[in-house]
Amino acid sequence: MRFRAMVDDSATPAIRATFVEMNFASDNTAGIAPAILDAIAEANCGYARGYGNDDWTQRVERRLSEIFEHEVAVFLVPTGTAANALALAQVSPPWGAVFCHAESHIATDECGAPEFFGSGLKLVGLPGDGGKIAPQTLQAALAEYGGHSPHQVIASALSLTQASEAGTIYRADEIEALAEIAHDRSLAVHMDGARFANALVRLNATPAQMTWRSGVDVLSLGATKGGALAAEAVVIFDPDRAAFMGERRKRAGHLVSKHRFIAAQFLAYLDDDRWLALARHANAMAGRLSEKLAAVGLKPVWPVEANLIFVVLPCALDAKLKAAGASYYVRTSESLDVGTDNVLVRLVTSFSTVDEDIDRFVDLCKKS
Amino acid sequence: MRFRAMVDDSATPAIRATFVEMNFASDNTAGIAPAILDAIAEANCGYARGYGNDDWTQRVERRLSEIFEHEVAVFLVPTGTAANALALAQVSPPWGAVFCHAESHIATDECGAPEFFGSGLKLVGLPGDGGKIAPQTLQAALAEYGGHSPHQVIASALSLTQASEAGTIYRADEIEALAEIAHDRSLAVHMDGARFANALVRLNATPAQMTWRSGVDVLSLGATKGGALAAEAVVIFDPDRAAFMGERRKRAGHLVSKHRFIAAQFLAYLDDDRWLALARHANAMAGRLSEKLAAVGLKPVWPVEANLIFVVLPCALDAKLKAAGASYYVRTSESLDVGTDNVLVRLVTSFSTVDEDIDRFVDLCKKS
Amino acid sequence: MRFRAMVDDSATPAIRATFVEMNFASDNTAGIAPAILDAIAEANCGYARGYGNDDWTQRVERRLSEIFEHEVAVFLVPTGTAANALALAQVSPPWGAVFCHAESHIATDECGAPEFFGSGLKLVGLPGDGGKIAPQTLQAALAEYGGHSPHQVIASALSLTQASEAGTIYRADEIEALAEIAHDRSLAVHMDGARFANALVRLNATPAQMTWRSGVDVLSLGATKGGALAAEAVVIFDPDRAAFMGERRKRAGHLVSKHRFIAAQFLAYLDDDRWLALARHANAMAGRLSEKLAAVGLKPVWPVEANLIFVVLPCALDAKLKAAGASYYVRTSESLDVGTDNVLVRLVTSFSTVDEDIDRFVDLCKKS
Amino acid sequence: MRFRAMVDDSATPAIRATFVEMNFASDNTAGIAPAILDAIAEANCGYARGYGNDDWTQRVERRLSEIFEHEVAVFLVPTGTAANALALAQVSPPWGAVFCHAESHIATDECGAPEFFGSGLKLVGLPGDGGKIAPQTLQAALAEYGGHSPHQVIASALSLTQASEAGTIYRADEIEALAEIAHDRSLAVHMDGARFANALVRLNATPAQMTWRSGVDVLSLGATKGGALAAEAVVIFDPDRAAFMGERRKRAGHLVSKHRFIAAQFLAYLDDDRWLALARHANAMAGRLSEKLAAVGLKPVWPVEANLIFVVLPCALDAKLKAAGASYYVRTSESLDVGTDNVLVRLVTSFSTVDEDIDRFVDLCKKS
Repeated sequence: MRFRAMVDDSATPAIRATFVEMNFASDNTAGIAPAILDAIAEANCGYARGYGNDDWTQRVERRLSEIFEHEVAVFLVPTGTAANALALAQVSPPWGAVFCHAESHIATDECGAPEFFGSGLKLVGLPGDGGKIAPQTLQAALAEYGGHSPHQVIASALSLTQASEAGTIYRADEIEALAEIAHDRSLAVHMDGARFANALVRLNATPAQMTWRSGVDVLSLGATKGGALAAEAVVIFDPDRAAFMGERRKRAGHLVSKHRFIAAQFLAYLDDDRWLALARHANAMAGRLSEKLAAVGLKPVWPVEANLIFVVLPCALDAKLKAAGASYYVRTSESLDVGTDNVLVRLVTSFSTVDEDIDRFVDLCKKS
Repeated sequence: MRFRAMVDDSATPAIRATFVEMNFASDNTAGIAPAILDAIAEANCGYARGYGNDDWTQRVERRLSEIFEHEVAVFLVPTGTAANALALAQVSPPWGAVFCHAESHIATDECGAPEFFGSGLKLVGLPGDGGKIAPQTLQAALAEYGGHSPHQVIASALSLTQASEAGTIYRADEIEALAEIAHDRSLAVHMDGARFANALVRLNATPAQMTWRSGVDVLSLGATKGGALAAEAVVIFDPDRAAFMGERRKRAGHLVSKHRFIAAQFLAYLDDDRWLALARHANAMAGRLSEKLAAVGLKPVWPVEANLIFVVLPCALDAKLKAAGASYYVRTSESLDVGTDNVLVRLVTSFSTVDEDIDRFVDLCKKS
Repeated sequence: MRFRAMVDDSATPAIRATFVEMNFASDNTAGIAPAILDAIAEANCGYARGYGNDDWTQRVERRLSEIFEHEVAVFLVPTGTAANALALAQVSPPWGAVFCHAESHIATDECGAPEFFGSGLKLVGLPGDGGKIAPQTLQAALAEYGGHSPHQVIASALSLTQASEAGTIYRADEIEALAEIAHDRSLAVHMDGARFANALVRLNATPAQMTWRSGVDVLSLGATKGGALAAEAVVIFDPDRAAFMGERRKRAGHLVSKHRFIAAQFLAYLDDDRWLALARHANAMAGRLSEKLAAVGLKPVWPVEANLIFVVLPCALDAKLKAAGASYYVRTSESLDVGTDNVLVRLVTSFSTVDEDIDRFVDLCKKS
Repeated sequence: MRFRAMVDDSATPAIRATFVEMNFASDNTAGIAPAILDAIAEANCGYARGYGNDDWTQRVERRLSEIFEHEVAVFLVPTGTAANALALAQVSPPWGAVFCHAESHIATDECGAPEFFGSGLKLVGLPGDGGKIAPQTLQAALAEYGGHSPHQVIASALSLTQASEAGTIYRADEIEALAEIAHDRSLAVHMDGARFANALVRLNATPAQMTWRSGVDVLSLGATKGGALAAEAVVIFDPDRAAFMGERRKRAGHLVSKHRFIAAQFLAYLDDDRWLALARHANAMAGRLSEKLAAVGLKPVWPVEANLIFVVLPCALDAKLKAAGASYYVRTSESLDVGTDNVLVRLVTSFSTVDEDIDRFVDLCKKS
């Protein structure tokens, strides 16, 4: 029922159940968007060649070329960590330094996957307000690299997270400014787009503007957080850069054998602008939640631009919310000292969040 | 319709379509077994914690402990290559040698995944009739290792494929004999069980007999070829050996975020002995096909003990079959010289193979 | 002549030449201490088994056990980078985090060797005045690790540089305090002792006090900077931790075939307390240089406790010194802003520095 | 005395000692050729920039360009394993297959160094009489590669050992034939030249003929076995292929800090055709030994073309020789069955072997 009410009217009875409410733990605690599940079922018809030699996969490739208005090489994988690590290993040598936000997912939540896939490359974490890297920060960091060969690793890539881990968004001109600095030093520009759609619908930019037109060379495009079962894509805008990526993916165990089903998820995600609709819903829910929280005196600490809200809660309220069944994670951030009586919490909305989740949550906050 | 008629009567309309016929290319060209697809849909209800902290995953672990009559540590992953490579990296150091059949999947079809995950470990390919390693072959190979430290890599693991790539099966006593040789030299014993169920139903052995009771330490247990969308498990029989496997899997990008859906596949695969039923059907189809081929003078080159048939076809017949729409792969084997007028072909049956596929294929052979 | 005058009266004619003066670039721009060169020549007598199976190597092992008053496992290698990277890979898994000073050699000057040898482990650079890590800094950094398995790498090791890159020295009680924090969290403690002897003679501590008695588990013990041609040792205080280190070293190409010559260097370095005499000379020269510089208004920025001096020079003086033939490196440090008219320079003394080098250098500074 | 008598009259008293006799264990059980040791001492004069930025290193580079009549990029390292592993990692991707003789040093004696440096590349061992790969063997092996992307590793390089591990030598036209097959399939051609000089003087070919003119792309050029302390060079004939080799070497810990001393060894090795004289002596001793052995009925099993002799000895004689103090290794070879009453032994001569070693050894054989 909730899914129906929300963004899709094709929900099958199975998913019209009652959900555990107030789940703001992550966008991956949500299930599969009904249309995407349907697409899996529809693809389950007859035989198809394995390992990506199927029609669904070809259609995804064509579709992404259209959407990005550019020839692209596409490699589907089941997880975002795989997409990021494969992408970075593809654009940075083992002796390369990849510049990223110090609190980015690749730096803190992938258990060293970029280093593993990249044969020991080095991530250089940069500070930055609201999860974003400022051009001058990148500039200053790069100034410390070069001229000390072969003792120092070589500045090789910049990785931007869009939307950021703090729920903020890089504008196209911000990406462009960062990419220009990077390209001047021959760095490749990678974008971790696990929440790419959430950024896209917020900015009202085209996919092309937010990527290659602004200087992005390789994109990890996520569908899982947006509503797929498990479907991520490495999108490479210069097909020359894609050489041997097929081997790289295979030897990482990330070439799914019944590949049509990962491709079918992506098609359903992209078709009829469904990815945008799903993201718009998630963002709208985050907007509603942040406004209502602000109204009860709990103003988010960073601008709420996608589907993530960071807010400081008194410990007592935190305990009360959890007792009432709310789910979310407590986070720490180097740039924020919340004292000992408070916690910084992250609230994530998704395609499946409904008004009632929000209203009940805020209600509990109000009465505190 | 075909699925229904075959092994499952819960098929939804979507999969009652007409299939491309005579597809013997691989067991991964088949789709998803209906009950497994249903299980995915059923799991799509409300929120669940990500990364394996969900009820489905716990149930898989309990279920596998019951099935194997042993405490086990279980790590679900989306591909068989991942399962094999993670398992081998877990039981062999970078300076280890892993002994396997020269034509095993890990040696020839995983693009170096074991070497990648294992930080450069070495696979030592052993010869063996019908895809199986003989005890004396292993014994002789091991005699070449040891006593030359630190110049030589260290014999660390034995990997057996069950059912083998040639479609043959190790009996429990054969596994035991090999494992004893391996354990005497402190090697770990890994089993690549991408087609474990096919072996199991053929032998009428228990899962325990075919694994830990015979000396297997770590199993790659496949569900994908048997009917899942993408679900494989690393099953470790000595939980002490599982230390930090969670980190290893995560940094390889193989920890699926919406983990309940991979677990749900496995549950459906295992529940009600469905895995056995699906495998029995595949094996039965292979039996039928091999008998009929033999009857028309095309005797399989190796015993047909699972769902794989290898047969030598005259090139003209090969061309005719392909023209008629049959799908299969031509293989080469070091141990078989088929001459220039013939090809060695591999025919794979699956849970979705139906009688008509076989009859039409044999019919075409008959008339040649 | 200079060498003779300095620390050794066994110099052969070949090295009595006139040196380029005022070379403070590094302790590796110096040559070989005469007694060590003589030892190479003496070892060049007849045949000896390769790869460490020789008498010289056994004697080094015994000698180091005596010196450290502890059973030790010793692995000789030709470079300090190899010693560090092998040591860290031995005590940290690929998913481990190694905590070190942000400006330590392993973090900035080894082109990612620890990450390469460690299959992608992660170095976590910590800030700290004068090249040293404060206990509370380590404590705070560790507080960010743990409880987020398997998404986050695991805190695995602490690496301390003794003497530090800034020329300062950890006292035994400082090492003990840091090691206690590390051990409480099950981290191994590594010491990069490229300039171990310089620290030792300064502190007047025993090798045991400065290492295992204070909690150091593994030491990279350098002889090269102290006067050897190329000889470094990984010293492991708990032989159990040394398992398979022989294989690790061999597969890294760091097992020297004519091993007696690397062992002979080490023996000569250690015999008759030569290592201490050579280091005392280097330290004394640094003391003399820093005092004289301070007397002309150029006070070192960090305490001069070993053989490294960091001093801020006006750009004009820097130019003048270089024009006069002085050699040294300009450095930057995140913790020091020297403005645009000055440079921070590093002056390194060694066993071969003589009074005249210092006097002439200071003289040039004086007149500025 | 022996060294003097042999190839060099500049020996210092220290090495005029009596040697353990009949040492045929390896060419690395010999010491340092006197002229090379002298060169180290001569280089020990004053200061020199570290890490290869010294005059000696530049001279080695120029000298090798002259010797090979070709612009070359040169990277000096302390061990042959490092040279081989760095060279192979430079010319093969992680998903590459490197074809080599099954009994080559890289395949059997480097503890997986090529796999480690090559991030998990795969060595494919080929059979071949007398340690050499036949063109048709390579051809047949390559036929098994290709067309199965991305499941199979990609044929990337051919590695030839010159002189081979069996003491035989590839003629220039044999190298050319193999290299042509390799290049036709875009494989790089590597030569493991640990005993390059021994091959060179035997063939009376120029260094150019035996390498780039015959299709060799990268050479591991050894000096250690020929008389150096520890000095090997990776010689890259197409400088474009050398990109980032400096970083690769550094992060492997193989950039020696006091680099002048490794360069000085190489200069002394090459100057005045000393490398050829040293190798000629070793080869002549092998020739003498093999002829005398044949005369007493112990005919070497493979042609003695360099400084290695393989001969089958009755176990009783083996015991007697060892009791008399002779040193050598027993080897096994897949292609040779010597029965249970015999052993296959390898006898290695070197620049330091003298007539008396041989005469006494043969004398012992004679009387058996």
